[in-house]
Amino acid sequence: MKNLEKYSSQYKDELLKNIIPFWLNHSKDDEFGGYFTCLDREGKVFDTDKFIWLQGRGVWMFSMLYNHLEARQEWLEYAQHGADFLQKYARAADKTWYFSLTREGKPLIQPYNIFSDCFATQAFGQLYKATNKAEYAEIARTTFYSILERRNNPKRKWSKAVDNTRPLKNFALPMILCNLSLEIEHLLEPSMVEKLINECVHEVMEVFYDKNSGLILENVLLDGQFSDSFEGRLLNPGHAIEAMWFVMDLGERLKDSALIEKAKEITLRTLEYAWDTEYGGIFYFMDIKNKPMQQLEWDQKLWWVHIETIIALLKGYLHTGDERCWEWFEKVHDWTWDHFPDPAFGEWYGYLNRSGEPLLTLKGGKWKGSYHIPRGLYQSWQTFEKLKVVQQIEVA
Amino acid sequence: MKNLEKYSSQYKDELLKNIIPFWLNHSKDDEFGGYFTCLDREGKVFDTDKFIWLQGRGVWMFSMLYNHLEARQEWLEYAQHGADFLQKYARAADKTWYFSLTREGKPLIQPYNIFSDCFATQAFGQLYKATNKAEYAEIARTTFYSILERRNNPKRKWSKAVDNTRPLKNFALPMILCNLSLEIEHLLEPSMVEKLINECVHEVMEVFYDKNSGLILENVLLDGQFSDSFEGRLLNPGHAIEAMWFVMDLGERLKDSALIEKAKEITLRTLEYAWDTEYGGIFYFMDIKNKPMQQLEWDQKLWWVHIETIIALLKGYLHTGDERCWEWFEKVHDWTWDHFPDPAFGEWYGYLNRSGEPLLTLKGGKWKGSYHIPRGLYQSWQTFEKLKVVQQIEVA
Repeated sequence: MKNLEKYSSQYKDELLKNIIPFWLNHSKDDEFGGYFTCLDREGKVFDTDKFIWLQGRGVWMFSMLYNHLEARQEWLEYAQHGADFLQKYARAADKTWYFSLTREGKPLIQPYNIFSDCFATQAFGQLYKATNKAEYAEIARTTFYSILERRNNPKRKWSKAVDNTRPLKNFALPMILCNLSLEIEHLLEPSMVEKLINECVHEVMEVFYDKNSGLILENVLLDGQFSDSFEGRLLNPGHAIEAMWFVMDLGERLKDSALIEKAKEITLRTLEYAWDTEYGGIFYFMDIKNKPMQQLEWDQKLWWVHIETIIALLKGYLHTGDERCWEWFEKVHDWTWDHFPDPAFGEWYGYLNRSGEPLLTLKGGKWKGSYHIPRGLYQSWQTFEKLKVVQQIEVA
Repeated sequence: MKNLEKYSSQYKDELLKNIIPFWLNHSKDDEFGGYFTCLDREGKVFDTDKFIWLQGRGVWMFSMLYNHLEARQEWLEYAQHGADFLQKYARAADKTWYFSLTREGKPLIQPYNIFSDCFATQAFGQLYKATNKAEYAEIARTTFYSILERRNNPKRKWSKAVDNTRPLKNFALPMILCNLSLEIEHLLEPSMVEKLINECVHEVMEVFYDKNSGLILENVLLDGQFSDSFEGRLLNPGHAIEAMWFVMDLGERLKDSALIEKAKEITLRTLEYAWDTEYGGIFYFMDIKNKPMQQLEWDQKLWWVHIETIIALLKGYLHTGDERCWEWFEKVHDWTWDHFPDPAFGEWYGYLNRSGEPLLTLKGGKWKGSYHIPRGLYQSWQTFEKLKVVQQIEVA
């Protein structure tokens, strides 16, 4: 018998007793609004710039907990606090979202990055569910339409690639849209959601999926062919695996067990390929032809890669019962919990070197905020609960 | 007595018997012109994209050896081979230089990076010396003027920073101009060279120099003040030290021993700050307030950082006789030669992890070509020769 009870409590307690209080206690900027995300090992603010990805993700995270876990006023207030700041300062004249602002809300980095818009959509869509304020629905919807309009040219004038020489498309946007289309389903026409889901699943599971290797490529040519270039050879195992649990969620919704099966197989294949047999943990970047890479951080072990993998393995196990998922889960769980949590000051390290030592001791920064870890702990905890039900049925 | 003879032969032999043949044998693209720079551990081509920084640097390197070391036809032909390709394909309509091209010469990445222009200037200026072809002088000169015109807005429309919120300037351009102004002195009005040298020395030694710490900052506010931001806190020790030998060369030319003394002190101070006392070697990036950084590669040990430091220490020792320069030289020399050269397949590794193991086994890539190592070996060898003369005089 698997000790689901133990795991479930562990993930729940870590979420509610460590991670959530850490962000509530350290990240609110009561003077200028929004969140500090650059928090050092002890949770002290070490930089005050405000990155829109992380502002949006913070709003989403606490709205989601409020909507799905418990209607705690403190969580809603925290989400509202970030949304107020975003609403006031974070959009340029054309309503696209800046990449970053100063502490006071002045624009710092232009809206070159479409994922700022994605996380803003996610934030306001979820906050609308909590508040029913029409203006939030409107922000989410108009931002989402703007993303769709720009999706073939997401970097706009800031793109450095010369048109037509080697036109590549990147995996991240269809992957995020898989998740986002479900996130704001309540704000869209059902026919639009259906169309979008079909398109994204096709992109992720057919176009970026490389049949020969069984792996997902990070960039392909516009016609879907392999590009034998630095970008074309790039693998981002964490990205691929994160997308696989988005697809499993879609598969559950679509009642498409073949889709779930394929997503589970890709998860396992990616993990076998990207697991560091020498030191443990999952590599950040790899090259599908095993050639030298541009990413100097390729061998590092990142928080989000590991927690996203845990989610995908648990969902894969829940839906398919494939025991390899559980075996891998235990292996990834052990390595992750042995290396990322910081028992002295709370929260988890984000960046470990290859051998698993902290490379940076920050708890939050330009890219790490209250997102992957709390979302992952929540998703895992909920999946353990479902697995407990399955186990009870089997025992009975 | 210092064994200058031994060191001099070591650097000379490495240059002429290992590094130069490696590039001559492996990097020429006889089919489409220009150089392959993406060479794996054995020297085999693993990617065919052509990066203008490295095409220009290759032309410069072999022209320089032809001009200053020995008029070997093979070297001139190699330089000419790269110049032909650059001349044919590497400029956009407005005569600025692309960042990269395909193997065949089609433009891949837009001319967003002013250092492509800097290395092209250096290349054609040096090749002009070797060939006396007026068209090369013309390319160098017009490119140089274009750099000066753009110097307050080097990234042009590709800049992601919002104007005026936190207007920063970066150390790299004034640093490179210190070197470039001497490189193409023969093509410029003497009054212009003098003015430019004064400006650049002021920028490097006063504006970017932080009096409190004795270190050089990588970015400062337009008015020269410190910016307490990720960019403002950033230190790039290799960059700072490389600039110090450029400044020592200027000091020699200007007969300004106070300037040389200051550059030598900054070199030593930077090295004391950036030396990894645990594993040896010089860190790639640091934060002046010791806060967590954005650069995940901060603790890596890079080829160019180490060879540039060797040059600065030797020049510092030659000009000032400060024994600390020699002591540091021996320490940096030992670590460098213990870790970077690859006796099995020739040339040097570029990227080591913190403990000194190869992180990537490439010998050339997007950023590493026939430049820092051969230039450094040549500069060091020449400096040993000068030190031998000094030693002989002292003995006599």
